[in-house]
Amino acid sequence: MNQKTPPIIILVRPQLPENGGAVARAMGNFGLKSLRLVEPLFSPLDPKAIAMAAGADSILEAATIHSSLEEAIADLPYVYGTCAVERLMVKKYMPVREAMPEIAACERVGIVFGPERTGLSNEELPKFRAILQVPVDPEFSSLNLAQSVAITAYEWYQTQGNFKGKLHLGDTIPATNDQIQGFLGALEHALDETHFWRIDHKKPIMWRNLQNIFTRMDLTEQEVRTLHGVIKSLRGQP
Amino acid sequence: MNQKTPPIIILVRPQLPENGGAVARAMGNFGLKSLRLVEPLFSPLDPKAIAMAAGADSILEAATIHSSLEEAIADLPYVYGTCAVERLMVKKYMPVREAMPEIAACERVGIVFGPERTGLSNEELPKFRAILQVPVDPEFSSLNLAQSVAITAYEWYQTQGNFKGKLHLGDTIPATNDQIQGFLGALEHALDETHFWRIDHKKPIMWRNLQNIFTRMDLTEQEVRTLHGVIKSLRGQP
Repeated sequence: MNQKTPPIIILVRPQLPENGGAVARAMGNFGLKSLRLVEPLFSPLDPKAIAMAAGADSILEAATIHSSLEEAIADLPYVYGTCAVERLMVKKYMPVREAMPEIAACERVGIVFGPERTGLSNEELPKFRAILQVPVDPEFSSLNLAQSVAITAYEWYQTQGNFKGKLHLGDTIPATNDQIQGFLGALEHALDETHFWRIDHKKPIMWRNLQNIFTRMDLTEQEVRTLHGVIKSLRGQP
Repeated sequence: MNQKTPPIIILVRPQLPENGGAVARAMGNFGLKSLRLVEPLFSPLDPKAIAMAAGADSILEAATIHSSLEEAIADLPYVYGTCAVERLMVKKYMPVREAMPEIAACERVGIVFGPERTGLSNEELPKFRAILQVPVDPEFSSLNLAQSVAITAYEWYQTQGNFKGKLHLGDTIPATNDQIQGFLGALEHALDETHFWRIDHKKPIMWRNLQNIFTRMDLTEQEVRTLHGVIKSLRGQP
């Protein structure tokens, strides 16, 4: 677990309170706490913002208001801008995923998002060490402000843990191989008795295929017990 | 470039037209085209949906309406559900990033999202081969529907290209080493003439530091010309 403080999100001249609230919600989802607003066209406590925050009110309440971008980033050593499309100037652009390890390794990083309609201005871009980009389909590149913050925050959160898939077991535990073989034995016995194989010399391959179905499933103890019951029930046994 | 068709997004009982529109916009941003709605509480052509789609109208216009989840996924060989929190059943959960290579490698994959308030029901989850999750802060795990679709679509799009950071050059080209050394020679000469070094034996280390500033910057031809002009101007030369 990385122990650096999460990046600070800075919105420049945001227009819609709904977006402010949606930004706060997305920040909360991914462990970001600190929001700065430069010349916002709404109050962070606007009811529409609070409604969209869906519980991330504390981020809106703690948001600070700034009269200029310069003032909002004055105390930050590392500040990145965001921009959908490259402008006519010499500037380093980085996909947000590629930039995130260096961002997550630093303290007091600011990430600046421009107004909904226009993005950051050509006069603002030179203030940033680099420009973060969310790669999008060039034929439809207009990313919603809150979506842009959400994906950036998501990428930061991905650096904070090693998220791995797993079989969720509920209140049971994995079956042992012995339990699985016990079920397969019962199944084979039942199929022998009910003349499932029909043509005897086909049994080996049919039985191999059937075993492969049940051994790739990561059966639990409870599931093995259930399957024993299924066999009994199908055979009309009590 | 992977040539498989993108995943199909399936929304079950979505409540708000704004979310339908925001989902369409996010799909468009990341190259997804196909949207299916199961018992939606709004028309995909609701003006609020169209407004939030911000140009992704074609996705809403092509969306199909289905009377049940079963009908909506009947033709799909691979169907994943989504769910924020593990339920009390034995089920495979995968972070969306980890699952995406197998999703991107298949044709006709469906990804199903539940209603805003409740998510997919315990009766619906068994229909899916696995459950995709966006890892979120456990203290604030309520992810907006459109954000959830956006991050899923973003992760799919990330599998479609090798996105790399670069210095965007505008209309100029990188300076050659010869041009950079030419500038450094002019700078050293000017600093010699203006007695910058003061203590002669300190020049080697000071000059090494100064060179390191200018050689780590990936200067362009235009920037080198500009810097030559800066030196001239500072020296009061025409």
